[in-house]
Amino acid sequence: MSESKLERSTINLGHGSGGTMTRELLDEVIFKTFNNPYLNTKHDGAILEINSKIAVSTDSFVVNPIFFKGANIGELAVHGTVNDVAMCGAIPQYLSLAFIVEEGLSMDDFIKIVRSIKLAANDSGVQVITGDTKVVERGKGDKIFINTTGIGKVHPKANISMDRVKVGDKIIVSGPIAQHGMAIMTQREGLEFESDIISDSTNLNYLVKDLLDGFGEQIHLLRDPTRGGVSGVLTEIAMDTNKEVHIYEKDIPLEKQVAAACEILGLDPLYVANEGLFIAIVDPEIEQHVVTLLRKSDKGRQARCIGEVSSKESPKVVLHSLIGGKRIVSPLIGEQLPRIC
Amino acid sequence: MSESKLERSTINLGHGSGGTMTRELLDEVIFKTFNNPYLNTKHDGAILEINSKIAVSTDSFVVNPIFFKGANIGELAVHGTVNDVAMCGAIPQYLSLAFIVEEGLSMDDFIKIVRSIKLAANDSGVQVITGDTKVVERGKGDKIFINTTGIGKVHPKANISMDRVKVGDKIIVSGPIAQHGMAIMTQREGLEFESDIISDSTNLNYLVKDLLDGFGEQIHLLRDPTRGGVSGVLTEIAMDTNKEVHIYEKDIPLEKQVAAACEILGLDPLYVANEGLFIAIVDPEIEQHVVTLLRKSDKGRQARCIGEVSSKESPKVVLHSLIGGKRIVSPLIGEQLPRIC
Repeated sequence: MSESKLERSTINLGHGSGGTMTRELLDEVIFKTFNNPYLNTKHDGAILEINSKIAVSTDSFVVNPIFFKGANIGELAVHGTVNDVAMCGAIPQYLSLAFIVEEGLSMDDFIKIVRSIKLAANDSGVQVITGDTKVVERGKGDKIFINTTGIGKVHPKANISMDRVKVGDKIIVSGPIAQHGMAIMTQREGLEFESDIISDSTNLNYLVKDLLDGFGEQIHLLRDPTRGGVSGVLTEIAMDTNKEVHIYEKDIPLEKQVAAACEILGLDPLYVANEGLFIAIVDPEIEQHVVTLLRKSDKGRQARCIGEVSSKESPKVVLHSLIGGKRIVSPLIGEQLPRIC
Repeated sequence: MSESKLERSTINLGHGSGGTMTRELLDEVIFKTFNNPYLNTKHDGAILEINSKIAVSTDSFVVNPIFFKGANIGELAVHGTVNDVAMCGAIPQYLSLAFIVEEGLSMDDFIKIVRSIKLAANDSGVQVITGDTKVVERGKGDKIFINTTGIGKVHPKANISMDRVKVGDKIIVSGPIAQHGMAIMTQREGLEFESDIISDSTNLNYLVKDLLDGFGEQIHLLRDPTRGGVSGVLTEIAMDTNKEVHIYEKDIPLEKQVAAACEILGLDPLYVANEGLFIAIVDPEIEQHVVTLLRKSDKGRQARCIGEVSSKESPKVVLHSLIGGKRIVSPLIGEQLPRIC
């Protein structure tokens, strides 16, 4: 079947059978799109030659809706894993790609997602080297779930880990917060026509490479505040280091529209997911240099220092509010925004 | 919350939030179970030192039911990926592990699956180095889906690929066929009390290592006939080499009970999935030695040569039947047995 014929069909259980229909889908859509020597062997796996320290990270993506302002589940599945590899201080190089598709998904949507993955992978400098496609019956999934596992070479100057976080370290965010989560939420709540909030889904690996090239070991920790938001990452740092983390509301970059949407929906932007943002915990000496470097890039143009790790031995995040008060940012307990990524 | 309290609860959306409930689930169930230095960093990814050729393979597991005779979805998720890595001629070493759980799964079942994964991983000599847990709303998944991505070092003597398959090569199966698929099907059809068919789900990496240690480059191709069964693998070989593949029904190992269940359910065992079986395409010189070596192991005790690659240029699989006839084994087109793995 030619791709043009496939385009007018839908995914059905036969596409996950391992038989002729699976082969056709792979040949016409997957192999044609990704076309690289790793995939073209059509083996059960890919062979790589590696001589270095590598970072490996895996993530499944179950976002609902699968198409949203600024990206779709395919791009998200690339960016999310590329960024997780980058947060380990590594240069992402390879991705595995596994689909769980619900019977009835339109082939057009599937192809659109596959093409977005290809573009996002190219853009991020990674190759899709191996994959899998499963199909589940209608009502046993939700359109499409995607798993990606990323592999990348650790940057020679990187030395990133929680135990390198020190008293006095500065907390830098690379841009405005809560964009991705609010893009999804406004769409789900039917508010998308009143807002232009766009997901920040993007790759951060080049920005991270620049940081590591420039500052090496003085970058102590990198984290992307996806599920659980900025508060999730900072709470983790406070708990794992047993130090109070102080942040300043006036310094936290937040778009007006996003703040307004959070207010309408009763959400605290500190808990809302981001997909193109990272937090760097850095030596206080380099704070200004890091901010300056990040701002040279479009993705980091609103980078700010938002606080520091205090000497107080207490696993808490303290927010200094706009009006001069202080409040504890309590950890998120249950679910605020299901299936945001 | 202690593990004993968790045991009486169910998975809910909060466990996928990235907040306190997620952390609790990870701490009490995942990190306690797998407890290794890679996971214990609790970073977004794992750091490995690799200096070799590696094989990488990914698979999602959506089998229904999640518990079945002989194994459960957790063990299957380990064996499936470990075997795919082994089929590349590699020694599996590392696994990533990603869950998509449907809200409402009992915590007991989740813990049981996690523990099975740990045991199967130990048994296979692999470590779970990084992971992810997502939760979807009731009715948007089906209990639990698992993705694993495996990494392993390529065996120094391995040279496995489709283009090494030659005219005259012998086709060896490591054991009786159709066990896994029929274990699942008899259970789904309510026939399980009348039969003792047990899934063959197991790791094949040690057996493959023995083969490669012993015969190196004379092993031309390895494939595990999971989805699509033995016919799927042989059809692929016939098509990719453009050679007729001949197999002999009398030589194909098939348990009586499995044959009977196939007959009752109208299924051809050649199309039924296996999860602890492989097909080796080998130099004809070593046919008997390979069979002898495999039979020394419990997992290979019924190994047989079932056919050969003929010189006829035609992409077909020809079965020589018990009664002396010949028939073409046509490729599976659509879905015969959905969600068998």
